[in-house]
Amino acid sequence: MYMFILKKGIDESTLKEKLKSSSASYKFVNIYGMEIALVWPDSEAEKIYDYAIEISTKIKRPFPLASNEWKKEPTKIRVKDVEIGGDKIVVAAGPCAVESEEQTLTVAKAVKRAGASLLRGGAYKPRTNPYSFQGLGEEGVKILMNASQETGLPVVTEIMDTRDIDVFRKYVDMVQIGARNGQNFNLLREVGKLGKPVLLKRGMANTIEEWLQASEYILSENNGNVVLCERGIRTFEKATRFTLDIGGMIAAKTMTHLPVCADPSHPAGKRELVHSLALASVAAGADMLIIEVHPHPEIALSDSEQQLTPESFEVLMNRIRGVANALGRKL
Amino acid sequence: MYMFILKKGIDESTLKEKLKSSSASYKFVNIYGMEIALVWPDSEAEKIYDYAIEISTKIKRPFPLASNEWKKEPTKIRVKDVEIGGDKIVVAAGPCAVESEEQTLTVAKAVKRAGASLLRGGAYKPRTNPYSFQGLGEEGVKILMNASQETGLPVVTEIMDTRDIDVFRKYVDMVQIGARNGQNFNLLREVGKLGKPVLLKRGMANTIEEWLQASEYILSENNGNVVLCERGIRTFEKATRFTLDIGGMIAAKTMTHLPVCADPSHPAGKRELVHSLALASVAAGADMLIIEVHPHPEIALSDSEQQLTPESFEVLMNRIRGVANALGRKL
Amino acid sequence: MYMFILKKGIDESTLKEKLKSSSASYKFVNIYGMEIALVWPDSEAEKIYDYAIEISTKIKRPFPLASNEWKKEPTKIRVKDVEIGGDKIVVAAGPCAVESEEQTLTVAKAVKRAGASLLRGGAYKPRTNPYSFQGLGEEGVKILMNASQETGLPVVTEIMDTRDIDVFRKYVDMVQIGARNGQNFNLLREVGKLGKPVLLKRGMANTIEEWLQASEYILSENNGNVVLCERGIRTFEKATRFTLDIGGMIAAKTMTHLPVCADPSHPAGKRELVHSLALASVAAGADMLIIEVHPHPEIALSDSEQQLTPESFEVLMNRIRGVANALGRKL
Amino acid sequence: MYMFILKKGIDESTLKEKLKSSSASYKFVNIYGMEIALVWPDSEAEKIYDYAIEISTKIKRPFPLASNEWKKEPTKIRVKDVEIGGDKIVVAAGPCAVESEEQTLTVAKAVKRAGASLLRGGAYKPRTNPYSFQGLGEEGVKILMNASQETGLPVVTEIMDTRDIDVFRKYVDMVQIGARNGQNFNLLREVGKLGKPVLLKRGMANTIEEWLQASEYILSENNGNVVLCERGIRTFEKATRFTLDIGGMIAAKTMTHLPVCADPSHPAGKRELVHSLALASVAAGADMLIIEVHPHPEIALSDSEQQLTPESFEVLMNRIRGVANALGRKL
Repeated sequence: MYMFILKKGIDESTLKEKLKSSSASYKFVNIYGMEIALVWPDSEAEKIYDYAIEISTKIKRPFPLASNEWKKEPTKIRVKDVEIGGDKIVVAAGPCAVESEEQTLTVAKAVKRAGASLLRGGAYKPRTNPYSFQGLGEEGVKILMNASQETGLPVVTEIMDTRDIDVFRKYVDMVQIGARNGQNFNLLREVGKLGKPVLLKRGMANTIEEWLQASEYILSENNGNVVLCERGIRTFEKATRFTLDIGGMIAAKTMTHLPVCADPSHPAGKRELVHSLALASVAAGADMLIIEVHPHPEIALSDSEQQLTPESFEVLMNRIRGVANALGRKL
Repeated sequence: MYMFILKKGIDESTLKEKLKSSSASYKFVNIYGMEIALVWPDSEAEKIYDYAIEISTKIKRPFPLASNEWKKEPTKIRVKDVEIGGDKIVVAAGPCAVESEEQTLTVAKAVKRAGASLLRGGAYKPRTNPYSFQGLGEEGVKILMNASQETGLPVVTEIMDTRDIDVFRKYVDMVQIGARNGQNFNLLREVGKLGKPVLLKRGMANTIEEWLQASEYILSENNGNVVLCERGIRTFEKATRFTLDIGGMIAAKTMTHLPVCADPSHPAGKRELVHSLALASVAAGADMLIIEVHPHPEIALSDSEQQLTPESFEVLMNRIRGVANALGRKL
Repeated sequence: MYMFILKKGIDESTLKEKLKSSSASYKFVNIYGMEIALVWPDSEAEKIYDYAIEISTKIKRPFPLASNEWKKEPTKIRVKDVEIGGDKIVVAAGPCAVESEEQTLTVAKAVKRAGASLLRGGAYKPRTNPYSFQGLGEEGVKILMNASQETGLPVVTEIMDTRDIDVFRKYVDMVQIGARNGQNFNLLREVGKLGKPVLLKRGMANTIEEWLQASEYILSENNGNVVLCERGIRTFEKATRFTLDIGGMIAAKTMTHLPVCADPSHPAGKRELVHSLALASVAAGADMLIIEVHPHPEIALSDSEQQLTPESFEVLMNRIRGVANALGRKL
Repeated sequence: MYMFILKKGIDESTLKEKLKSSSASYKFVNIYGMEIALVWPDSEAEKIYDYAIEISTKIKRPFPLASNEWKKEPTKIRVKDVEIGGDKIVVAAGPCAVESEEQTLTVAKAVKRAGASLLRGGAYKPRTNPYSFQGLGEEGVKILMNASQETGLPVVTEIMDTRDIDVFRKYVDMVQIGARNGQNFNLLREVGKLGKPVLLKRGMANTIEEWLQASEYILSENNGNVVLCERGIRTFEKATRFTLDIGGMIAAKTMTHLPVCADPSHPAGKRELVHSLALASVAAGADMLIIEVHPHPEIALSDSEQQLTPESFEVLMNRIRGVANALGRKL
């Protein structure tokens, strides 16, 4: 595939004309302040010359916009005043599921005090079993936003259905795509069009290359604000709930300019492992963490085994700070 | 979980009253001609007695309606006049993607001649890469329905988005849930409400238990017409595209009353393996097969490596017939 | 890598001279009645010309001797008067572990009566736990050989240690390499030197390519009598003990001239699945099956869950015969 | 299973008498300065009372000696004057394969200078392909020992065959069991009898529970000096060579008193990932690292892609020191 970066302020009509009359396929994308034309196959793209083209690059990987073949410098993503992808490691924390105003606000205040920058919490919950608690839906989103207003923490929460896009447009600061929707391509496209920052979890059976192609669904809708989140892959090992693929997360980072995040809660399955996996992720080079914290994990409506208490979270944050500082980063 | 099968023609209001005033959770389902109440947790369910209850069964598996703990006899599912789950092995065949009127009709006629009972074909296509051919969408569905009218073969095709439910209501005979949406719970629920027969593919990283719980999302919306389709799981092996888990398919069959289907095309990745996997699936006990056939596989817009020619499909059908007959079944 | 097949009855000394004085690496192998020189890397091999070379072939796969790039016709392997790899499907059957004279003889007679051609049974047992029954060792081998004499069935049994090679030289008809020793390269080499037929199980985490390279360790010791045995790979699925990779087994068959065998007992884990997996393997194209049969599975010292009774085995054999006949093979 | 810890200096003969005359199975082990009797099944063990028994504990896990159910304090293992399992993180470093005196000595000096405590290097090499460089064998071991004498670094190197046990008895300080022999039970038992410290790699398809049972083969031969080494498991992901299961390593640590080691080189496959995986492992809680270093990785005879240069290793050691210090440990 060829990527043509266009000159600024130039009329593209002759280029579009040429593309239309060629046998090439193409797509125009406006991203990172640039006007870009993606053109394929190579044999056709090579024939196109136009005054509007500033840089023409052949991209080998199947995720041209997400690849660092053309954009070497890391992309920094802003969620309100929080910057992801810079020196500072960003921690999103909060309950697995939003259960009530009080529970959410209690956690929000606690995680803020401990140094978290974002509030996480599930309102729409993908549950394996239809008879399990399914989340509070839009009401849950509103509870999150109230806690956000009280604490000043921007909110990241999961979307499961293209029909809910308006709720997310109205309220949410950062939209999460969960592992089970990691290849729900229509949802990815809609979230791309929404334009808000996206936390894109890797599907539990997706390769790094498939994960990056999933991000490409968002980027190609002119939305470059994607953070890639590793949350554990499915393997034969059952001593942990999933296998956090820290090597895969870093392998992704060597191929993309997008920031990477680790979720140590879901793979751990057990509280005692969350600390280890969080620290390991930061030491490996994660730009962000997303961690489940509950005021009373033992009575949580979901994932009670893996949510930290506010006290344990605070201990963890101090240890993360130590590791981050040792490696030239901040918390 | 407890399952209460209610007496026919009985007023349920006192039972509902009792459930409402208990601390139990419950759900009423109308399925297979029965009125059923699912009640949990067990400690609460055990306290409920009512005149309306004919049979009360404790169900241990997390997919009560799909389990054969209460419904021993296999469920037979009708797609128009085709019965799935009986003696006869049902074969759905057709192109990976609907590309044109002509391509679709040619294949439809060929597969009918060779003994297929259903026409398959992708109109909405989940593609790993956003720049690949994405299917013809609603237009593709209409092409399929035309071919259906000409040949008399009912159509099975994939839905990817809850927003497309009306297209499927209007046209399609059997709705396919693809592997990548195997845990798209909102889509499963909508397809349940739709009431049409469903071909539910197993997610490529889903356990048998998760797959059966996914079917439960459909059944609990009063739609018992689900065929479980094994299409290959993700493993370390790359000599085939996916690993067709024939043992898992049969393990599922020992736990459910629903029919099982195998898709030998997607795991094979190569044409030469499709025959072997199709025959193996029938010998193991599959009730249905879904096979990709293309008039000219070498120029197909997707999956060209694994689509059979009509000639090869006919040879395969004859071999399937032999194996089926040897094991007391028909084709 | 280049393969030079040498002319018959020709003096090789000048070729050896040339190879010695070149910078190529090489290995002479005498296999399938041919004298063969393997020479690499290609850049060096291409420079070698000699009168002794009848055919020179460039082999692309990393298992030159096992590859069907040069030997198109399937290899048939004889274990005494049993031929593996021809029209007839060969079934080896017997207990998981040899427990006593009586148990072994009872099973041997039963499986012979039902149509088995080989007697299987574990004397040296690889057990996950050091406190489990570890097998009878050499005594177990002798019990097997007695049963062999009484029934006329040749014996296949597993070797675990290079130090036991003399026991196998003295007694055993076919030597099995178990899944846990699938990459025990020293053992493979010794079994190659032994010259007896080998049943080479695929390591539970080995790719098809690694499996075929393991066979190459045996073949390159001048022993071409290898049957490749698929016995299930490790995947995330736990409803079965292992995932029988029928597609992988057939993919191997498309790359090699060696016969392939399936072990339906170990992956099944449960008796009720053994039938399905055995029938599926035959339908897919396996040349051989190896099945566990015990006179009283419920009191077996190992694998009691997956051993068939003699009665069930007989039923299965009849069904296998039906499938084999339907596909133009015999039992 | 029951564990009886015996009183010191007590005559065990009456206990042995009782066990002999019971229907229990049992095994006496002398480990960590204690005389221990393991007795099973529970129903029989419960009947045994004897004056010689100081503590009687029911052990639930299938690896009684390795379990921390009875031995809470972490075991520290000495390789000459190097202690593994204490505050100090121990790093073993050296070439993938011993290629020559000079190469080995150069690396040994470099890694010592950078802070490594042990010299690693492969003399017996398990290679997937029979035509690859197979290691220098005993000669390689001698080269390692010379470099050990010059630098004072004790040596850890891999054993592949029970027939080589005398070479290891004579020369080697710490014996490595490689991933491909992770369930070579005869080799494990011999290495147990040898009595030297063992670095036990996890088989690439072994669960945590199987890995710990493998260690039990060594411990039950009265050898408690085992370090468990995670080196990456086989998963569907191919962007890295193996998936380093850091969560699994720490899950193991929560179940055993044995120290844990991580091998970041083999899973990385690429030099740039070795740093990330090494740092992650230390942050998670590894007691030891084993890292491949080569003076000129680009001309290495094996694994050239993943060996660090001495310079890169030194940078890594400084970063490891920072992370270790931040978490209250030393390098």
